[in-house]
Amino acid sequence: MRTIFEAELTQLGEDLVAMSRLVEAAMADAGTALLTGDVALAEQVIAADRAVDALEQDLDERCIALLAQQQPVATDLRTVVTALRMSASLERMGDLARHIATVARLRYPTPAAAQPLGETFAAMHDAANRVAQRTTRMLSTHDLDVAEKLERDDDLLDGLLEEVFATVLAPSWEGSAQETVDATLLSRYFERFGDHGVSVARRMVYLVTGETAVPA
Amino acid sequence: MRTIFEAELTQLGEDLVAMSRLVEAAMADAGTALLTGDVALAEQVIAADRAVDALEQDLDERCIALLAQQQPVATDLRTVVTALRMSASLERMGDLARHIATVARLRYPTPAAAQPLGETFAAMHDAANRVAQRTTRMLSTHDLDVAEKLERDDDLLDGLLEEVFATVLAPSWEGSAQETVDATLLSRYFERFGDHGVSVARRMVYLVTGETAVPA
Repeated sequence: MRTIFEAELTQLGEDLVAMSRLVEAAMADAGTALLTGDVALAEQVIAADRAVDALEQDLDERCIALLAQQQPVATDLRTVVTALRMSASLERMGDLARHIATVARLRYPTPAAAQPLGETFAAMHDAANRVAQRTTRMLSTHDLDVAEKLERDDDLLDGLLEEVFATVLAPSWEGSAQETVDATLLSRYFERFGDHGVSVARRMVYLVTGETAVPA
Repeated sequence: MRTIFEAELTQLGEDLVAMSRLVEAAMADAGTALLTGDVALAEQVIAADRAVDALEQDLDERCIALLAQQQPVATDLRTVVTALRMSASLERMGDLARHIATVARLRYPTPAAAQPLGETFAAMHDAANRVAQRTTRMLSTHDLDVAEKLERDDDLLDGLLEEVFATVLAPSWEGSAQETVDATLLSRYFERFGDHGVSVARRMVYLVTGETAVPA
């Protein structure tokens, strides 16, 4: 019984890694679609989000089946409950990548992240990519040092969000209302993506060390 | 054993209702603070959000303790897992009310939801209040008819979000970039609040009927 349960826990962990890899690809492509105005890539991200949603549903059902059949306690129980919560965060990260791709598609052929914000959004994309890569890495290696770096990328995203607002609200801003709306939404999507990455990381730290940080 | 478990499940249900009532009050006050420029009320909403966060943490810990000690299966298990997810949605709804209050506070003494968007935001506030009230009602009565009405309020919020964007993007829009940013964020906060209400309602429908709707 115990061996089957351990195999099932390992499988849960692998599925979280698989979800995280999909999210990583979604963010990489969504940002590229946004920055280069690649509408085909944007549509690909939008279509691919269904796979993340399906993985979440499947993973959740298996968590509930595990709780029912194996009746785990202590750390095993926390592992299963944490997997449920991580899958919800990863699903939401997939949604946010899809939202970014949707803005890219709607604005085509005009690039949605144009000057003077192009560089800021490129930096947000880089930071979000690192958040996604580190989330996958934490999930696959349980290396807690990654959590600290991930928090720094999230801080960077918060700072870049402020930079977007400062640009948009400066007297020199000549963007249209559409550009202002896009900049507001896009920067928020990137920033929320970072928040969810931090949430996954903190749950992993808690699972491994039993020490809880302030929730993200 | 069974009687203690039933009492604990009832308590979980009551705690979700208590959380939902706090969220209801938060949304009522946040919208009023926004529409009337009441900075003291905005600050009250921001401070009160801690109580929602504390209730969520407490409820989550008790769900995990219940899973460990009572080892529920079938419907009981789904009830506990659903409570975990509902508390996450309610916590997020509290955050969104707090975000609205924060915008109201930042803009004081200028009203953040000014003309020509005043009426649209008043309608968003009304719809969001109904979402919150119906969420509480569903949680306390398990009356599934409420779910359908809640979905209609959410549709209304989606429509009002489009109305805000249409206003902001019309050639007649003379708002500043700050007003455009505020309108974008505020309408999104209200709209996401509706989404989370729908998510709670659908989980309740699933719990009672076993039939799942498309996830919100």
